[in-house]
Formats: sequence, C-alpha cells, structure tokens
Amino acid sequence: MSVLVVGTTALDSIKTPVRENPRLLGGSASHAAVAASFFAPVKLVGGVGEDFPKKYVALYRKHGIDLAGLQILPGKTFHWSGEYEVNMNNRRTLMTELGVIETFQPKLPAAYQDVPFVLLGNIAPALQHSVLDQMRKPRFVVADSMDLWINLALPDLLKLLKRVDGFVLNDSEAQLLTQTDNVFLALKKIHQLGPRYVIIKKGSHGSILSGPRGMFICPAYPLPAVEDPTGAGDSFVGGLMGFLAAAKGAVDANIRRAMVYGSVTASFCCQGFGLNATTKATRARINSRVKELEKLTKF
Amino acid sequence: MSVLVVGTTALDSIKTPVRENPRLLGGSASHAAVAASFFAPVKLVGGVGEDFPKKYVALYRKHGIDLAGLQILPGKTFHWSGEYEVNMNNRRTLMTELGVIETFQPKLPAAYQDVPFVLLGNIAPALQHSVLDQMRKPRFVVADSMDLWINLALPDLLKLLKRVDGFVLNDSEAQLLTQTDNVFLALKKIHQLGPRYVIIKKGSHGSILSGPRGMFICPAYPLPAVEDPTGAGDSFVGGLMGFLAAAKGAVDANIRRAMVYGSVTASFCCQGFGLNATTKATRARINSRVKELEKLTKF
Repeated sequence: MSVLVVGTTALDSIKTPVRENPRLLGGSASHAAVAASFFAPVKLVGGVGEDFPKKYVALYRKHGIDLAGLQILPGKTFHWSGEYEVNMNNRRTLMTELGVIETFQPKLPAAYQDVPFVLLGNIAPALQHSVLDQMRKPRFVVADSMDLWINLALPDLLKLLKRVDGFVLNDSEAQLLTQTDNVFLALKKIHQLGPRYVIIKKGSHGSILSGPRGMFICPAYPLPAVEDPTGAGDSFVGGLMGFLAAAKGAVDANIRRAMVYGSVTASFCCQGFGLNATTKATRARINSRVKELEKLTKF
Repeated sequence: MSVLVVGTTALDSIKTPVRENPRLLGGSASHAAVAASFFAPVKLVGGVGEDFPKKYVALYRKHGIDLAGLQILPGKTFHWSGEYEVNMNNRRTLMTELGVIETFQPKLPAAYQDVPFVLLGNIAPALQHSVLDQMRKPRFVVADSMDLWINLALPDLLKLLKRVDGFVLNDSEAQLLTQTDNVFLALKKIHQLGPRYVIIKKGSHGSILSGPRGMFICPAYPLPAVEDPTGAGDSFVGGLMGFLAAAKGAVDANIRRAMVYGSVTASFCCQGFGLNATTKATRARINSRVKELEKLTKF
C-alpha cells in the first residue's frame, strides 16, 4: 500500500562545527518521503518555488516518489538555515525565508485521496488539517509537529490530535506540551488529547511508543559519528509509515518493528548532510542494521 | 559466590522539590551492597563514625550483609547533603562533611580476601587500589567512579583502570574523561585505558555495554514517578555484580542479563528516598519487572 506524505519541501543551509553546506534538499516532507520510499510507494504533497533545483526533483524521482502533488509556485522555495554546536543536540536557527510556504495550500490530486497511510509531517497544523479534509477514508494517520506549532498554533494542533491515530514528537516538545519531563506521564497525557498511538523520540537514546498493546522501548542504532542530524526525526517517522504501509496485518502487530526500521533509516540520515547519506541507503543495508540492532538489544 | 563491595557508607540529607529527608542511610557502598544482596551474599567494606545509627546497622543485617569489614571509627559519619531540581537529572551538593571517611583505610578481614567478585564502588581511587591490593586473586573486578575523582585524582584513576575487568560510569563522566559526547567513541576510548568491559549509564535512558562480545543496549525500567534518584547508579552496578556472582557460567554469557537485573534494581531505588524503596524490593518483584522489560523491548 502507498503512503501519502505532506510537510515542508525546503532548502536547508546547515552549519556544523566541522562543515558548512548551503542549499541542500531538506524539509520534513523530503526526509520523510525518501525514508518511506525504501519500503512502499510514496505520494508527496508540498510546494516549492521556481528556484527549486532540478537535481532535487531528480532525487525525488530516483526514489520513485509520486510528485503529482508537488506544486511549483511563483516565488522562492522555503529556505531554512541553522547551526549545530559541538553537542549535536543543540541547534539554533540562523535564518528562515518562508518563501512560497507562506501562502502554500495543499491540493490533493484525485489519485491521492484514497491512500491508506497518511503521514502529516511537520508543517503548520492548518495545512495538516487541510490535507486530512481532502482524504476520503485513510486507514492510519500519523502526525508529527514541532515546538514552533505548540507555541504558535496550539488550538489548531489540539484539534488535529483528535483526528489522528498517531502522534510523534520529541522529548523536549512532549515536555513543552504536557509540562512534565517524565516520559511515562507525558505519553499518558498525550493519549488524553486524542491519539491512540503516541511516540516520543529521544534522539540517540531511541524512542518510546505507547499504544493499544502497551509500551515499547525502541533503541537507536549506535553511530560512531553524527555528521548532521537534521531530518532524523522525519526519516524515523517516514521509515515507520513506509514499513507499516508495506507490512501485512494489523498496525498493532507491526508497529514495533516499524519503529525499529524507522530508527535505522534515521541512522543513515545522521551520517551525511541533508539527504546525502539517506539516498545512499538501500533496503538491504537497512535490513542488515535492523539485524544488528536485534543482536545489540537481546538479553 | 559472594560479592565484596567497597565504597562510601554515609548519611545523606536529600532535598527534592517535593520533600526533604535528613540523615538517610546512603553512600555508594550502602546502595550497591543492598542491591547485590537480592542475588548473592555480600561482604561490605567501609567506615562509619560513632554517630552511625543502629537502625542502619540493622538494615544491613536484614539484607544478610557481612559487616566484618565495616569499621566504626572515632568521629562522625560521612554526611552528604544535596538538592534536586524539578528535572531530577540536575542536582547540586549543598554540603559535604567528610568525617571519618577522610582518614578511613580499608582493612580486609581474612575471610574477605578470596571473594571472587569485587565491586569497587565510588570512593577515592586510592582506597579502591588499597582494597584491590588486599585481595588474593579475584575473578572479576568492576570499578565505579565519579566526576570528582576524574577531576581530582585522575592519575590514580587511570592506574586503577589498568587493574580492573570492568568500569562503570555515567554519560557526563564519560564525556569528561574522554572529551567526546559520542557514547560509541567514548566506549572505545575507555577500552584503551584498560577495562575489557565498559558500561556507560544514561539514567532513565538506560545504559550501554561494550565488552568482548560487542555492544549491548540495556533499557531502563520506565517509572511513572521518580522520588529520589540518589544511589540509582550504585544500585545498578550492585545488582549487576550480585547477579553475576550468583549466575552459573562465564561473565561473558551472563553480563547482558546482569545489566537488566541491575537496571531493574535501580528502578526500585528511584521510587523512594535513600534506600526506603530498595529495601522493600524482593527477588520476586525484581524478576517480575525484568519480565515486563523483556516484553517492553521485544520486536
């Protein structure tokens, strides 16, 4: 089955203590779509400007991503620029040029409206609502978000949480949303806001799911070096949704392995700037890391 | 088989945002010895002052801990006082009265010198050396330490690392020692300092082992509330060493499960002030949490 992915399609200029890379392909939808493409066919919803490099369209196509829902709009592509400290957990935004994303309105092609797995990647909650409004009867909807929307669009986000099956956020966002730094309590409080599945991401510490079958502690694949963690969270949820869409059986039965596959896909993302390392991953390399992770966690 | 535990035997006055508890039984040796006692016979090495409450001697005895190596010295018991912030990962020392610990010299009774499993709990590296000097031929020696000794007694600590089989420290200490925040690299660098087994503790994020059979990612038991994390690290390594001492077969074959048992023992520690919750644990309750943890991590 297919996955619909909506989110930002952006140009990222990323600085780390080691290197600087201007105008890489980035955005939540780009990372999530490429990650999902290792498992299932992907349909992308997004908006870019007339300056969007052709090589990035080619990159999407290389991963078989359906671009019927990618609008090319008059103006400039959303451009984010950020800097990481030596500790890669600390990043600061240097500059944000919204460009076409400011007025972007998702318009779903007819062929998109029956896709069973919907990933509402990180973008304004109003746009996530708009995509959901255009879907006929999706089987499984997961939303991602970020601190910006918790701070600026909380009412919209809270309404969205009542419409989705799953919600994915990182630990600092969970703390911001629930006012507790206890992950166990945060999961509980977020369930009360709507979603049956809640996943809190903890970067290199892995992630935790709370769902109808209880909790699952998902490990992160240990890396000797992190080149650029931008998009790792999007890759995680993209890989997760791709795996779910491709797997037979109920979501409940597959979601733990889906998280592990998402986690491993995210590990590739961290090993290069932008999508450089993710695009070099293969299903075979992903499978091999999942097997390693099984060995690393068995007791 | 038995475990020898050396470390501090102290009185802890602990303040959290919720409560204040004066003069609890604390210290690395107290926490580790009680934790180990759920699995194997324990012989304690330590020094307390004449003010050391009889009820705490009774607590040790309740756990069957051999106190032949506990010296009662003229003067006051080591007294530490600290305060936790709302985020329990942040704690600050309010006051330290060294008392008898300042001049304490471990003297091992003859019956202690052939104990096969030796836990050099957190205390000055010189005292850890002194205990090791008095042992005949221990089968497996693990040392714990803290930032204080990395800062104040690094040459002694580095010498110790060449004499032990395993070294356990937390992530911030590993970063201080190795100058890298990448756990993978930190493990590698610490191996080069001597120990064949290196374990980095990450609090509620679990712990990571690197040993002759590769790495192991050990989960933490998720708790809905943490009352007081003081001594959790000591309980972890105490439980680990107790489990190893009781298990049949090679350390290599048992150490992963030993870490899981240590992790669960530490979870009890966090649920009460001082040793209040640890002492209420039982082997059956520990086993049941280990089973839960197996379910929580299976994929």
